[in-house]
Amino acid sequence: MPRIRHAPFDPEAYEWEGVTARAYKDDPGTQRGMAWQGLSRHTLVRAPEAGVSFEVRYFEIAPGGFSSLEKHEHVHVVVTQRGRGQALVGDRVVEMSPLDIVETPPFAAHRWVNAGDEPFGFICTVEGERDAPQPLDDAEWEALLADPRTARFAH
Amino acid sequence: MPRIRHAPFDPEAYEWEGVTARAYKDDPGTQRGMAWQGLSRHTLVRAPEAGVSFEVRYFEIAPGGFSSLEKHEHVHVVVTQRGRGQALVGDRVVEMSPLDIVETPPFAAHRWVNAGDEPFGFICTVEGERDAPQPLDDAEWEALLADPRTARFAH
Repeated sequence: MPRIRHAPFDPEAYEWEGVTARAYKDDPGTQRGMAWQGLSRHTLVRAPEAGVSFEVRYFEIAPGGFSSLEKHEHVHVVVTQRGRGQALVGDRVVEMSPLDIVETPPFAAHRWVNAGDEPFGFICTVEGERDAPQPLDDAEWEALLADPRTARFAH
Repeated sequence: MPRIRHAPFDPEAYEWEGVTARAYKDDPGTQRGMAWQGLSRHTLVRAPEAGVSFEVRYFEIAPGGFSSLEKHEHVHVVVTQRGRGQALVGDRVVEMSPLDIVETPPFAAHRWVNAGDEPFGFICTVEGERDAPQPLDDAEWEALLADPRTARFAH
């Protein structure tokens, strides 16, 4: 019998047994829009040896924090777990509360922002084999700035 | 820009906008162990047209309810969302509370049971292309019955 995985969750620590939090990215994000602040990442499931093609990660953004503003071909499937956030996705701004679902389409610019005063956490499932994030091009950047709803996400 | 999906969650109804609950399976489960009771299924994400190879479903089991006792090659990645459950996975019984993670290895027998008096709900992510569930063979069935920890899951 292959290893049966059971990772109990500790609600006090907001941590899973055997799962270590690490920084969101190794790279501090020096290209335009690629900076990020106050994020941690937990890789909850990554099991290619068992034939699992996807990965399940938990991201948490501290109050005042935000992810990189980026785009890529692979889709993010996000299920909110705690706190309150806002997401820029393409030309839209969506509100996120627990269990709200957001999908980022291929090459849609996106940035996740904590919009409350407690941690904002979400589970994000992606393909295990995926392309690298890219910064926005000039036209995309200008379009965000030109729209008063999205301008504050372009920084 | 492809369609940006945002499915807000209604905590009162425990429902997502645009997602309709349906029966767990179309088949009532007449083979040994394949019966199930009190389950509903929500398909939260299925987007092969956007290059998403996996599916994300939410299953809810009413008090007293249980899923089929089955096995298959594809892996279930389960993240508990509400209530309290127990899972038989292979030769183990694991307790499930919110955010606990369970992975069923290929061909491990498994059954989910509501172990509390409120709905037991979990998100289960799987490959979009996957094999069909099978009932247990005689040796697997007898092994469950022979172990006092697992015998009650063989019905």
